[in-house]
Amino acid sequence: MNDAPLRLAAVLFEGFETLDVFGPLQIFGNAPDVFEIFTVAPASGPVRSRQGQQVVAEYDLHGCPEPDALLVPGGWGTRELVDDARFIDWLAARGRDASLTMSVCTGAALIARAGLLDGRRATTNKLAFDWVRSQGPEVEWQTHARWIDEGEVVTSAGVSAGIDMALGVIARLVGEDRARLLADLAEYEWNRNPDHDRFATAAGLA
Amino acid sequence: MNDAPLRLAAVLFEGFETLDVFGPLQIFGNAPDVFEIFTVAPASGPVRSRQGQQVVAEYDLHGCPEPDALLVPGGWGTRELVDDARFIDWLAARGRDASLTMSVCTGAALIARAGLLDGRRATTNKLAFDWVRSQGPEVEWQTHARWIDEGEVVTSAGVSAGIDMALGVIARLVGEDRARLLADLAEYEWNRNPDHDRFATAAGLA
Repeated sequence: MNDAPLRLAAVLFEGFETLDVFGPLQIFGNAPDVFEIFTVAPASGPVRSRQGQQVVAEYDLHGCPEPDALLVPGGWGTRELVDDARFIDWLAARGRDASLTMSVCTGAALIARAGLLDGRRATTNKLAFDWVRSQGPEVEWQTHARWIDEGEVVTSAGVSAGIDMALGVIARLVGEDRARLLADLAEYEWNRNPDHDRFATAAGLA
Repeated sequence: MNDAPLRLAAVLFEGFETLDVFGPLQIFGNAPDVFEIFTVAPASGPVRSRQGQQVVAEYDLHGCPEPDALLVPGGWGTRELVDDARFIDWLAARGRDASLTMSVCTGAALIARAGLLDGRRATTNKLAFDWVRSQGPEVEWQTHARWIDEGEVVTSAGVSAGIDMALGVIARLVGEDRARLLADLAEYEWNRNPDHDRFATAAGLA
């Protein structure tokens, strides 16, 4: 990859799940030649995660630069946000224009409502599967998957699965060696197999 | 544990490593009966992580409530902070009074400089081992460890090891079942063995 880094919008909202955002950003943030990261939320300024910490959104939806890539987390905040037409319209437009939209956990419900998953295979958190599925009737939901790479759209299972997905995306964009290096820097045991998903079985989604 | 939750100070500073903080907080933040979390930094307000995102520190050192527990991350910011007498003095005093001080990654250098590790076993990031060791000559540094629980002080290896340590601390405080539940909620494959450390060997610390 000799091009400029992809401008990655990390989407925040009240009640986002902490690790859904900061797992992938730990990986992408150490690859500044691949991703240039900024944060965006329905309103700019501090946004409180489900776990209670406040993270600064640099942009609101209106002022946000057009991203090349999006990272959409899950969390309890998605339950309200799926019905927020202004947010969903923004996500639909930005997702259509971006070359890469990634969701973690119940973030899949948001990109499903934005129509970005129609006709595509996708996965999500195994403990919220039925609810997420109800948000995207035209999506080919997969119960057993750590993450699913459909090219322009990549979805991951719950929370920590976002780290494995991020490494998978790095492997596709700049090679497996770089992904291994970034995993090693975090002393992280990368689950490299996107089909390995013990949690689907544990959640009774056999 | 029928007591009030432990007041946990999550320490931030410019250049902290993202996942060092947000891995453990993902776990602890879902156990509000065990930990009541607040953030503190040398100055209150937004603090930029090594990976570029800004997180709000609710308190500065002076205004910070006395914590029962501390979480001290690592990252490049530690290289300056080990020589910041005001911060190290604060950490020494708060760590002595707290019942639990935890470090992730090169955060061990900070608590070593604060004297909290003298005569104790401790570990740290395997790629920065020599530098961290130089910050605490009276510490019994252990090259092979995912985390080391010395009771009042618990240290972990690099970055993602903080998640395993956090689950280990939860297991000690409120039982292994709770730790498993919190890991499952994050769809996280907990490395339950504190002595399992592939990265020490990889870093040539055999």
